[in-house]
Amino acid sequence: MSTDLQNRRIRLASRPHGEPVPSDFLHDNAPVPSPGPGEASLRTLHISLDPYVRGRMNDAKSYAAPMEVGDVIVGGTVSEVVESADDSLAPGDVVLGYGGWQEYSVEEVAGPRRLDPAAAPVTTALGVLGMPGFTAYAGLTAIGKVRPGRPSPSPRRRVPSAPRSRRSPACAVPARSRSPAASGRSRPLEELGVDVALDHRAPDLPGRLAAAAPDGIDVYFENVGGAVWDAVSLSLNEFARVPVCGLAANYNATSLPEGPDRSGALMGQVLAKSLTLRGFIQREFAPTMFEDFQREMSAWVTAGDVRYHEDVTVGLDRAPEAFVGMPRGDNLGKALITLS
Amino acid sequence: MSTDLQNRRIRLASRPHGEPVPSDFLHDNAPVPSPGPGEASLRTLHISLDPYVRGRMNDAKSYAAPMEVGDVIVGGTVSEVVESADDSLAPGDVVLGYGGWQEYSVEEVAGPRRLDPAAAPVTTALGVLGMPGFTAYAGLTAIGKVRPGRPSPSPRRRVPSAPRSRRSPACAVPARSRSPAASGRSRPLEELGVDVALDHRAPDLPGRLAAAAPDGIDVYFENVGGAVWDAVSLSLNEFARVPVCGLAANYNATSLPEGPDRSGALMGQVLAKSLTLRGFIQREFAPTMFEDFQREMSAWVTAGDVRYHEDVTVGLDRAPEAFVGMPRGDNLGKALITLS
Repeated sequence: MSTDLQNRRIRLASRPHGEPVPSDFLHDNAPVPSPGPGEASLRTLHISLDPYVRGRMNDAKSYAAPMEVGDVIVGGTVSEVVESADDSLAPGDVVLGYGGWQEYSVEEVAGPRRLDPAAAPVTTALGVLGMPGFTAYAGLTAIGKVRPGRPSPSPRRRVPSAPRSRRSPACAVPARSRSPAASGRSRPLEELGVDVALDHRAPDLPGRLAAAAPDGIDVYFENVGGAVWDAVSLSLNEFARVPVCGLAANYNATSLPEGPDRSGALMGQVLAKSLTLRGFIQREFAPTMFEDFQREMSAWVTAGDVRYHEDVTVGLDRAPEAFVGMPRGDNLGKALITLS
Repeated sequence: MSTDLQNRRIRLASRPHGEPVPSDFLHDNAPVPSPGPGEASLRTLHISLDPYVRGRMNDAKSYAAPMEVGDVIVGGTVSEVVESADDSLAPGDVVLGYGGWQEYSVEEVAGPRRLDPAAAPVTTALGVLGMPGFTAYAGLTAIGKVRPGRPSPSPRRRVPSAPRSRRSPACAVPARSRSPAASGRSRPLEELGVDVALDHRAPDLPGRLAAAAPDGIDVYFENVGGAVWDAVSLSLNEFARVPVCGLAANYNATSLPEGPDRSGALMGQVLAKSLTLRGFIQREFAPTMFEDFQREMSAWVTAGDVRYHEDVTVGLDRAPEAFVGMPRGDNLGKALITLS
């Protein structure tokens, strides 16, 4: 590959304080990297935008190491192989990798997973058939004890906190739209199989949620926190199970909210209702469940039992604005950057 | 039985605001109740004092219905059968019942469980071999995944929050004394098999706990809350499991503590460390585990693997002061009232 070809990329210019601002992102160019022994060079087709990346911009240990200032912003990617050290990846292959916010990346040949464009749109490897879909699958089945394909132990009560692409037979899905203009969005959510869409910014979310789930809630998939959790917790039934995979409402917080301190009251709810709160990262379950997930989820998507939506922004340069818009609710469905 | 015999009893005079005061308790006498068809009359020998009773004094739904003002204070009892409607209970039998704070009670014959005084001291039916012991057993095994008798998945890291009578092979037990005069109590705790006793009122509990458990904590049996939980949570390891069976530090609270609001940060810890918080009431596990518990715990007590301590106050009239002293840490071990 010609090394005078330029690699456009977006790097972390400074650690954001609260919501990231444009100056936290540095757009620049570098020579396209050449693969070394055992490596392949990849041209990025699609980039996944995920809320967890906000946490990695902080200089604080969480479940993943922080990025350093100057690093290319991290993220899963679907890419085309340009050049490869060995036959396991051939030029033209489309792969799932972790190239981040740039036009070209170099990864070890053993790293990326080859995708079959005939089997499913390749972008699904970043969404419903990839990490986000697996997160939903693992949390709902291993922790929530919901068994898709069988009657749920608690039908019509499962509440995902961010509109995603998970629906399984015998489980109704009340959900909520993150958009202030909820009315304009309830139609797409319903087309995805959502039974009830609630605007979390409108008044009396607890009351509307209780009305939408009159028998209470047995499983709540927590990936937002904040006011949604406050409302849901009031409707949780005895023995309810709460897989906790994200708290997007907190990610831009710069300090603890004002009091009173409700942490003891939260423990009191756990006790009084025999709740299970279980934090998890999908990688915990990948070794034992990912193969089942791929087989089952592919079948559900094919059968139309699971429907998904992608929110595609075209152009690398627009990645920061699309990323910042996620916690505001600007996207509906899986947020992707497609490189033009 | 002569009905002019008097039954001394202690009733709820008013719902306590915060810590109960003497005027919340009404001491009076009533005729000894006579058993009806299918009933037995019992003379109380020992009364169990348990923290959960404080919650039942409030007019608030928790996992048990509240007492009404005027009710005899509830509690488990070891009693002697005085008169019985049928042969399943004979006069002189010693039974485990739920007579509450009074000298005589009437219960359905099918209710009380007959005890064998030759097998174990009958007071153990209110403690190590009864509900409190079973609570510890169920929480540590079913939720904490500690398997007594086998090497623990996480030796030397288990922390019970109130000094009790649970110790199993291969599990070290750092504990803390609730008494301000911790030095005077560390000896009895150590004699019970506690490896480290910490005074939760002395400065820098988090630092001392971290020093006592340098590899972190995998299982924390939560029955206190408050400052102890705050300290423990800092030392919890990834995938730590927290059976939540009580929050004694909160029971006398009359309002939420001042801020900031740390409830979102608590959820953040659940997420970042993949924690399991699981509230439970022992009755959830009784149908499936109580028989195993009785067999195993009896054997452990006989072998000296589990040691216990009873904190006995003599005289029904002293029940209120002993009860109020529990959250202050006045007792060491199982709090009992023995009727003179």
